[in-house]
Amino acid sequence: MVMQERLDALLCYLRPVQDLRAAAEILEWDQETYMPAGAAAARARQVATLRKMAHELFTSDRVGTLLDALAGEASDLDPCSFAASLVRVVQRDYARAVNLPAALIAELAETTGCAKNAWREARATDQFDLFAPHLEKILELTVRKAQALGYGVCLYDALLDEFEPEMRTATVAEVFRALREELVPIVKSIAACPAPDDAFLYQAYDTSTQWDYGMRVLRDIGYDFACGRQDMSTHPFSTSFSITDVRITTRMDERALPVAFFSTLHEAGHALYEQGIDLDLEGTLLADGASLGMHESQSRLWENQIGRSRAFWRYYYPALQACFPRQLGGVPLGTFYRGINKVAPSLIRVESDEVTYNLHIMVRFELEQALVGGKLAVAELPDAWNDRMEEYLGLRPRTNTEGVLQDIHWSLGAIGYFPTYTLGNLISAQLFERAHAELPGLMDAIGQGAFRELLQWLRSNIHVHGRKLSASKILRRVTGGDLDARPWLAYIRQKYRTLYDL
Amino acid sequence: MVMQERLDALLCYLRPVQDLRAAAEILEWDQETYMPAGAAAARARQVATLRKMAHELFTSDRVGTLLDALAGEASDLDPCSFAASLVRVVQRDYARAVNLPAALIAELAETTGCAKNAWREARATDQFDLFAPHLEKILELTVRKAQALGYGVCLYDALLDEFEPEMRTATVAEVFRALREELVPIVKSIAACPAPDDAFLYQAYDTSTQWDYGMRVLRDIGYDFACGRQDMSTHPFSTSFSITDVRITTRMDERALPVAFFSTLHEAGHALYEQGIDLDLEGTLLADGASLGMHESQSRLWENQIGRSRAFWRYYYPALQACFPRQLGGVPLGTFYRGINKVAPSLIRVESDEVTYNLHIMVRFELEQALVGGKLAVAELPDAWNDRMEEYLGLRPRTNTEGVLQDIHWSLGAIGYFPTYTLGNLISAQLFERAHAELPGLMDAIGQGAFRELLQWLRSNIHVHGRKLSASKILRRVTGGDLDARPWLAYIRQKYRTLYDL
Repeated sequence: MVMQERLDALLCYLRPVQDLRAAAEILEWDQETYMPAGAAAARARQVATLRKMAHELFTSDRVGTLLDALAGEASDLDPCSFAASLVRVVQRDYARAVNLPAALIAELAETTGCAKNAWREARATDQFDLFAPHLEKILELTVRKAQALGYGVCLYDALLDEFEPEMRTATVAEVFRALREELVPIVKSIAACPAPDDAFLYQAYDTSTQWDYGMRVLRDIGYDFACGRQDMSTHPFSTSFSITDVRITTRMDERALPVAFFSTLHEAGHALYEQGIDLDLEGTLLADGASLGMHESQSRLWENQIGRSRAFWRYYYPALQACFPRQLGGVPLGTFYRGINKVAPSLIRVESDEVTYNLHIMVRFELEQALVGGKLAVAELPDAWNDRMEEYLGLRPRTNTEGVLQDIHWSLGAIGYFPTYTLGNLISAQLFERAHAELPGLMDAIGQGAFRELLQWLRSNIHVHGRKLSASKILRRVTGGDLDARPWLAYIRQKYRTLYDL
Repeated sequence: MVMQERLDALLCYLRPVQDLRAAAEILEWDQETYMPAGAAAARARQVATLRKMAHELFTSDRVGTLLDALAGEASDLDPCSFAASLVRVVQRDYARAVNLPAALIAELAETTGCAKNAWREARATDQFDLFAPHLEKILELTVRKAQALGYGVCLYDALLDEFEPEMRTATVAEVFRALREELVPIVKSIAACPAPDDAFLYQAYDTSTQWDYGMRVLRDIGYDFACGRQDMSTHPFSTSFSITDVRITTRMDERALPVAFFSTLHEAGHALYEQGIDLDLEGTLLADGASLGMHESQSRLWENQIGRSRAFWRYYYPALQACFPRQLGGVPLGTFYRGINKVAPSLIRVESDEVTYNLHIMVRFELEQALVGGKLAVAELPDAWNDRMEEYLGLRPRTNTEGVLQDIHWSLGAIGYFPTYTLGNLISAQLFERAHAELPGLMDAIGQGAFRELLQWLRSNIHVHGRKLSASKILRRVTGGDLDARPWLAYIRQKYRTLYDL
């Protein structure tokens, strides 16, 4: 076989794998949006079957044999070419998949299946002890997972790599350290200022009007409804079944205007990324985001840099006022803008503002490392959590429900995931700084509801590549540098200096 | 291995097959309800992958080997036991699946893929010639399919058997002949009567009110929304992903009240069947209807025997009038009842009334036999169609669009399917006659909106068995006899004697 034939054979072999995965995603989307409650058990079985078959097909020796031959051949090619990228990405995923023993995967699935329920109960009743033994088991399996996957310097590297390929723990730690040093004083000086009024955001807002308004903005920013749709779910998410079918969900709160709107913008950011992938990559492993951090950079960019900017609301606020004249008619733009950008240290990550958010992530990142490194016992975790919250945010949780039990991630075995949220925030600012430099009048355009140029810039610089380029390669191509907290700090400083009259 | 181990091995092996099929159904449901248009190509590929994998898994030698051993063992068991039924049903499906060469399946899929588009264009432009070559090819492949499957007396037996297991062409032909002999004069005498007014059914009816009304009736008759849901689609259908997830769709016509309502009742009849299958059969090949005819009997029973009865509307009409006071406030119950039961020979099957409907089916059944038997050439089909329409219904289509091109079935390769519609009508009357005998005061209960007893009767006599009993066995158990047109004729005579003052 010549190389092209081998490549075609690989693509052909992997296509059903991708189809099975897409089918599982569709079943999961349905589960969160329209599935009747009685179907839960059958649906869990159906999804498990699809995932298992995809895994078995993917880890077959056939893939290994083709990869062995292709790896050498592809090394002569342009590393950014389709062929070289495909081989590299499949190699990476294949190595991770075959290195994990089936028994370990099964044990993890079984353990997290129980842990999720235990976590729900522990959180509902504020009893950390109910969750602790499950978390201990998860940690033990996670360590075994990291050992099976292999790692360079520290065990956490193997975990982080699952979500943020090529990123190293030491790099993240150093960037986070630099970020924290500057951020904690900023948060303190903001906390010393009088809090802006945002009570007007929390009154009765008709949900169907909220929905219509969100749909209008989705259309305006370039979300393609011919290749996507928005629905309702308990927890908003975005999901992709093909480049031509990228869906988002949102959540409506009749008593809180920001909930649906900013979740819609956030998920749209993810979806614009997936809708923008080169159609030539459709059905291959390259048709995905470069990393979770890069993905999150897109959602945060639309949610925060754009959606919480004054320019954006200069254009959109009159229409919002027209939708809700009773609630917002007497609220000037400046007041609204300050309200949606209110900063206040809080206990719950998902309710926190863009300034304090990263401190929540650092707490988790540091505790995760201590846990998997054996430096912190699960029994000591609640106190360690509370101590660190007090240190970084100046608040001490009174219960574990508003402390260590608040997030679902660990119960799912997703350890190493949290840092990608902050990576996303930092990358969004790095990218947006470049967009400003390359697109003169960017904020003016946004102030006129014109997003085409920006979306086009994001498309050609980031979206189109899918997984052909790694996140760090994209970052270097676009910004000329590596992960860096300074652009985000500069953005925050500039924005909140005016807002809070610092 | 002892028998139980072999049976468990078979169940365990077939579970992913059922999960793959359910996943394909979910993807198809999504395609008809919520999928964005741009996703069509990717979705077709995904569904094809799932179906292909299910077929490959199902036809593996492993199933054959297990079946060979089990077949002998199961012959000692009660044929209605779970084990004996499972072996029998898997054997049947397996034999059909392995007897069809993969190349023939692929050729059929490819041919019908093109034929469907050709049919759409032919129908839109009234050009039979566009469809004719495709139909010729489909017929040729269908004959090869029947030969591969094997058959007793005639080739059509093999086709009919796909949809109506154990049913024979000769039986259907004889029952249809008897039916036609009596039905044609009935239709003629009705046609001689003055037509009742039904214009009031065709004015503006707010679709969201129609929707709410249909949902209320669905709840009343016992459709379980914890294990199902209703959505909108271009063509109404019911589909099942598990016994705990059986969904229906409906279609709204703002200018025609009967469209949504009777399609909702029809699909609900199908869904009640699937929701009523014994939960112990979940995930096995037994969790399905006994045959298409038996399935259709359930939809027709709810749509016609109940939904077009005077008793039903005695209860529901006041509420409908309250929904549409402007349209129906001045229309007495009797007028409404006559309107929804208006009989008039017409050209289009799906728009025809319950009396003339079966004549449309006979036209198709006879032409299908002539076509596959080589007694009729495709080129002669339009004239043959029109001649027979004139003979049975007294109307001659002026175009092929309102004649031979009206149905999608042949373009899909579904030859042998049509007779099951009439079988469903006949069976529904046979069953309903027994229900009347066994449930005194049945129509009084319906006249009070009380359906529980009837549903319970249908559940325990029909639904619960799934495929454990064949349609003919169910029929014999319930009625003591075989397929018979007389109960349906009696029902029609009695109902329309009063309605048309014959």
